[in-house]
Formats: sequence, C-alpha cells, structure tokens
Amino acid sequence: MTKYPQYWNETKETMDPAQREWLILGLIQEQLNHVYENLPFYHEFYDSKGFHPSQVQTLDDFTHRVPLITKDMLREEQEQHPPFGRYLGFDVEDGIHIHGSSGTTGRPTFYLFSRADLDYFREIMAQAFYTAGVRRNDIVQISTDLGMFMGGWGTLWGVERIGAKAFTPGAGNAERHIRLMYQVGSTVLVTTPTFALRLLDVARSLGYDTVQSPLRLGVFIGEPGAGIPGIKRALEEGWGITALDCASTSEMTPWATNVECSEKRGMHAINDEVYTEIVAKDDPTRRLPEGESGAVIYTHVSRKGQPMIRFWSGDESRMVSDPCPCGRTYPRLPDGVYGRVDDMLLIRGVNVYPSTIQRALLEIQELGSEHRIVLERKVHMEEITILVEYAPHYLQSIPATEHATQLEHLRKHTANHLAAVTGVRLNIELVEPNTLERFDVKARRVIDKRTTK
Amino acid sequence: MTKYPQYWNETKETMDPAQREWLILGLIQEQLNHVYENLPFYHEFYDSKGFHPSQVQTLDDFTHRVPLITKDMLREEQEQHPPFGRYLGFDVEDGIHIHGSSGTTGRPTFYLFSRADLDYFREIMAQAFYTAGVRRNDIVQISTDLGMFMGGWGTLWGVERIGAKAFTPGAGNAERHIRLMYQVGSTVLVTTPTFALRLLDVARSLGYDTVQSPLRLGVFIGEPGAGIPGIKRALEEGWGITALDCASTSEMTPWATNVECSEKRGMHAINDEVYTEIVAKDDPTRRLPEGESGAVIYTHVSRKGQPMIRFWSGDESRMVSDPCPCGRTYPRLPDGVYGRVDDMLLIRGVNVYPSTIQRALLEIQELGSEHRIVLERKVHMEEITILVEYAPHYLQSIPATEHATQLEHLRKHTANHLAAVTGVRLNIELVEPNTLERFDVKARRVIDKRTTK
Repeated sequence: MTKYPQYWNETKETMDPAQREWLILGLIQEQLNHVYENLPFYHEFYDSKGFHPSQVQTLDDFTHRVPLITKDMLREEQEQHPPFGRYLGFDVEDGIHIHGSSGTTGRPTFYLFSRADLDYFREIMAQAFYTAGVRRNDIVQISTDLGMFMGGWGTLWGVERIGAKAFTPGAGNAERHIRLMYQVGSTVLVTTPTFALRLLDVARSLGYDTVQSPLRLGVFIGEPGAGIPGIKRALEEGWGITALDCASTSEMTPWATNVECSEKRGMHAINDEVYTEIVAKDDPTRRLPEGESGAVIYTHVSRKGQPMIRFWSGDESRMVSDPCPCGRTYPRLPDGVYGRVDDMLLIRGVNVYPSTIQRALLEIQELGSEHRIVLERKVHMEEITILVEYAPHYLQSIPATEHATQLEHLRKHTANHLAAVTGVRLNIELVEPNTLERFDVKARRVIDKRTTK
Repeated sequence: MTKYPQYWNETKETMDPAQREWLILGLIQEQLNHVYENLPFYHEFYDSKGFHPSQVQTLDDFTHRVPLITKDMLREEQEQHPPFGRYLGFDVEDGIHIHGSSGTTGRPTFYLFSRADLDYFREIMAQAFYTAGVRRNDIVQISTDLGMFMGGWGTLWGVERIGAKAFTPGAGNAERHIRLMYQVGSTVLVTTPTFALRLLDVARSLGYDTVQSPLRLGVFIGEPGAGIPGIKRALEEGWGITALDCASTSEMTPWATNVECSEKRGMHAINDEVYTEIVAKDDPTRRLPEGESGAVIYTHVSRKGQPMIRFWSGDESRMVSDPCPCGRTYPRLPDGVYGRVDDMLLIRGVNVYPSTIQRALLEIQELGSEHRIVLERKVHMEEITILVEYAPHYLQSIPATEHATQLEHLRKHTANHLAAVTGVRLNIELVEPNTLERFDVKARRVIDKRTTK
C-alpha cells in the first residue's frame, strides 16, 4: 500500500500560530492596499466609511477598523455595474469560469474566476481535501450538481490537483448514484449531509449492505450536518465511514478552508487563506474571547479576484485553538458552523436555532430521523410546534393496546429534553415513521406559516 | 474589437490532405503498435483474428485488415476485468477523471482519463470549438448536466483552453437557463438541439424576444439535429444565431472532432485526431467512394488512454472532400451524422431512417415542429403511422367549416411528399399544435408497439 505524506504542505500547516498570524497580517495589509487601489467598489465604500488601509497595523486594528461587507451589498453593486460589479480585480476578458450564488429565483450574485483564481483554488482545495484524508488512490464520488453551486466545482478542482480520481455521476436520481458507487468502487463521497442520508435510506431499501459499502470516508458540504453528533453518527454507522464536516460559503471559495481532519475535533480554519473572526453578533468590531459563540466574519487573505474582505456570512460558531493531535496548528470551529444568525428563532423571548432543536432531537434514540419546525401565529401569540417521527423500531415489540401510552410517554420525554436544551417549552407532535417528506439536496425543515399572503 | 486569428492551428488545419494522410498513417502505425504491445484486450483480440500491426503499410491496409471493435465488446471486457477493462494504457492510479457511457440502466461502460488524456482533450476540443467560432471574448453557456455525459465536460475543457468564459447553469429547469442566459449575457449556447428548441418554446412563452437574445452562436451536440436543414433553420431564426452541428460519440472523446465551421457545409472531420472511415454497412473492410452513404468507423489516431481503434459507431453518414471556403482541408460529413444504422426501419422492404422522415416533415411549412413515428403489428403486416402536428398558424384565417377539408388537404400533401422522399407510402395522422409531448434532453420519436411484452 502506498504511503502518502501526512500533510499537503507541512511547513504551512504546522507553523507556530504566532508566526502565522504575523504572516497573515502582512498579507492582509497587502490585500487591503490591493482592494483599495484597484477595486472601485471597495475604494468608494472605504472612503464613505472614513477607513483607509494605513489604519491597519495589527490584526486587532483589522477587526476594529475595517467595515463589513454583506451579500446585499454585492447584489446591489452587481445590479448597478452588471454583471460582475466593480470588485473583479482583473480584465473581464481574462475570466474563464462564471458561477453564482445559489439563489433559485431572482438575480444571483455572479462569480467570475480568472485562470489565476482557478489555479489558486486548486491548490487550496487540495490542501483542504488532503486534510480531510483524500489521497491519490481514492475514487471521489462528487454527488452534487455541477452547475452554479460551488460545492461540486471546488471539490473537483481539489481532487484533480491531489491526483485522486474524480467521479461525477451528475444531478439527481439517488438510485443511480448508489448503483454507480458500488460499480465504480467509490472510496470517498462528497455531498450534502441531507443527500448522503437520502442515499442511505434508498440504498437500504434496495437491499445494499451499506455498512460494507466501498466508501471509507465522507466529506459533507453545503449545510451543517456532519458537525452535529447525531447526524455524524448516522452517516458513519450507516455507511461504515469516517464522516467529516467541511465548508464555509460559496462567496469564500476556496470554501473548504473550514475542514475537519480525521481526529474529528471540529473544522480546522485554514486562516492563512481565509481569515476567520468570531465577533459579537451586535458589534462586529468586538472580537469574542476563545470559545464564545458569535457571528462568523471571513476574509480572503490572498485571493486577488473578487476578494471578500470582512464578509458577513450570517453564520454562527465558536473558535478554539487548543492543539489538535493531527499536528496542524490552525484554530478550530469545534462544533462546526451550527446556526445561521438569520435563521435564529425568537420563541417567547428566547433565541433558539433550528440546529439546536435538531441536535436535541437526534440525542433521543427513540425518535426517527426527520422532523419539521412549524411556526404559526394564533390569536394572541406565536406558536411553535415540532413535528417529529418516532423511530421505526419504537413500537415494534409493544402490544397495540399500549401504543398510545407509549407515544405519550415519548412525547413528554422529548418535550422535557428540548426544554432543558433550549430553555423554552415547545409543542411536540409525534408522527409515524417515514411520513415526513425527505429532502434531496438541502433540508428545509422550518415551515413558517406566520405570514399570510 | 479584438481580432482573433482565423485558425487554432493553421499549419495543421490547412495542410495538404495527401501530406496529412501520410502523417496519419505514421501515427496509426504507432498507435497499432501501442495497443498491440501494451493493451491485452487488443493483443488477444488481434491474435484471435490473425491480425498483426505489421500488416498495415497503407491506409487501405488499415481498412482491409484491422478488425472492428464494438460497444458490446467494451462492455464485456469491463465486466470481465472491472472496472476499466484491459485497454487503459496507464496505471489506474494515474487516472484523475471517471466518466461513462450514458446508459441510464444497467452497467455503463466506464471511461478513466489520465492527466495526459485531459491535457490532450483540452487541446483538441479547443481546436474544434475554435473551428465552430468560439473566441476568447465569448461567454459559453453549457446547458447540459455535467455528470456521466461527456458533452458538457468536453465542451468545458475546450472552452477553458480557448480562454473563453464557461458558464454552467446546471441540469434541468429551462426557465432558469433562460433567465440566467439573459442576465449573464451568454453569447454561445452549447446543448442538445432538443433542449435548445425546448428553451426556445419556453423563452417565447415567457415573453422573451428570443431573436434579440444575447446569443450569437449555437453549437449543438449529443444527437443529430443542427445538421438537419429544418431544425437548423428553426434554431437560427428562433434564437437569431448561427447554428452549427457537432459531435461524434462519447467513446471517441475528444468527441468534437466532427464540427461545422461558420460556412455550414457540414461537419469537418478532424481526421488527424479521429480518423473517420465510411464503409459498406455489410462489409466494414470495403471503404465507400466519396459521397456514398455508409457506416461510420472511428479511430483514435493519437489518444493513448483507452484508445478506440476502428470503433463501430452505429452511425450512418457520407463524406466529401471538396474544398471548404474556410480554408480547412479536412474532409467533411456534408449532411452530418444523419442516422443510426441500428435505428433503420424496414418498411415493406424499404430501408427508411427516422431522420429522413423528420427531414421531410420539416420541409413542409404548414406542419408543426413535433411528430411521432408509431410502429405497430396488425394482423398480417407491420403498420407505420406518422403522427404530426400541424402548424399553429395553419388554420388561423380559415373558417371553421372548412377546417376538415383543409386538414385532409395537408394530410395528403404530407403523405405524397413523404412517399417521394422515402419511396414508401406511410399513414399520416395530423394532430393539433402542442399536443405531442416535448422532450427535455434528447428526443425519442419512434414508438415501437410491435413487441407485446
């Protein structure tokens, strides 16, 4: 068996963090000069906010001084200066790939990549997927659409650069993805956790021995999931694999700079490529102490085309820097990106993330794998009801006469557990196994009936 | 406006044909030695047929002596030596892309490409798309799934090599492809003719001015269509573009070696990369004289990984070599690849291709754009009925009392025209506009009800 080196780039990945921060500062200063001098979008925006790159002499200055940019600003800029906005950084004719944000209606934000961008992405995506354990002898099944969505593309570029075999079965049709996986002998699966769970259901129903699948590793992208213990366990036990969490957001391509290694202590933040800050949700100039939960801000340290400088991702996470046994000295997001600040629900004055509810439900073995969070406005107040399936095995060896009692018991237990985790009491409604619709690509579990149109 | 060179590789493309054939012979001899020495599949097969590469001293020898390979042989070889068969030509670990034939059920034939293969494909696909007129300042919308199907991939690689902008909206959803086309300003569309016509229908129904679309060029792949005058006209007039025919078959990747230039005199056969023979359908050792219709045999002249040597494509075409005003000296397939030998219908002793019927129907302006060919077995004989829509405008200014007479008139005219073109009388049934289902990717117009299962 071929022995591969442990790191893609050992010097860089195992560098003393203080030395790395010193390098990052230099690169960020250079980057700020670049965007201010060459990109009218940033120049005008920084001038309007009274910011000048010379104000950044430390990484603390960076957090305190540099104004945030948001998705809405990018969209507006592209509408006024179509199609790519004035933050491109190269001549339009030098662009060779067009992609876009994943909006299914309306105008997406368009990305244009130059040949230099692509070469850069290949290198960093390779570092990231190598961190996840992809090696040259792997067959990497990329079970995503290769369209606008950057997930498939970034993966492809990294896998090509590593020299592993990229296998792209194309969009849709779970059954076909499974059949081809076994025929080709795919060793690594890259897809959304939702689609990986869907493939698992379908494969089992077709009679495949999924635990003995050819897969040895799964890298899950596009939405949180592999960072949630219950989902990680379902993926690992179901497919007989190591399941790793990966990805930031498409604006931050090379988006795999958030990636777990095989130690599974949360995603490493490859911060010498995408510098990651955790700040107070209500004050992005205030960096939070290690371990505290806040809003995630990303910055392209080296990317010169359409660079994002202090981009408000809308994600929430926390960051730690204790050593990882893998030897990489990057900070980590130990619980992944566990919520979107924008998704947060306010329930009787308490902030609750849908992902927190999902996590809590997955901790109860008697519950099934699917649920919904239904928001309604009743006469005087907002109501939140959790519809959740009980596990297929739950009532199996119980006489039918006792089913009602058993279910009521489980309902109460679930309500108590959720109250303990979230701090509020929620309505729980149990439904039969396999009655809630399954999602194919990304899950949409919050059903908001409050706005009557 | 930037002025680009006329040719991708002038010396090669405008070479004296006799000199080119001399070069091709040398390359083919080298290729035969390669496959015989290095690929057990070919070695055993050639030995079993008593063929040895030393028997090929001329291109005539090549046609007379070298045994054919077929899809079935590849499938069988891969089943016995999974997953890639013993005709790979490089170490499996050096493969970086896995694709496959487009079979939707059962086991596809798998393709493994090495980095060297990919570099080679990029160069030849670039030559082909440059021949079609794609230039560096184009935005090329690749409206196909990037999965197993080689159409999207080959296009992508050629477009990347040219340095044009590749835009990949992903699979499905016609409306989204159209909206993005106008937002991005795509100048070139690459897709199947069927999907291009579908996009046209949908765009019109959404109120887009398709004649004023941002497109200037369409390169149509995956099935014959742009080589059929009526379809070419519908695409050109509908989208306000030049519509060009392109492609051989996925086994022959770089498959765009059949490609029309802007002179639209049929596809150039880039025969110094894929050597193309037209042979008698019942005797593949007999090459047909210029202009005669026969079976198409393809050979990879230089590709070293999974090379196809005298591959029976199942296609029918004819070849000519009169000069093209574009200056390229390759032979041409003046009517494209107009039928599949396997698709040929035997109607009362006469051979008729579905594509011949389609061509003839498109010549009648009073007919609509969709039809079906229904094959049935009645008591004593086979019946063939053509269901065809009349044009939406046909009955517009005619009093309702006369509709029946008018339709009968059109039916007879259609039957006579088809009889003149095909040599047999066919049943014609006219149906209302927009009643036959439209196809999304590839058209399947022959409905065979003869086999009662």
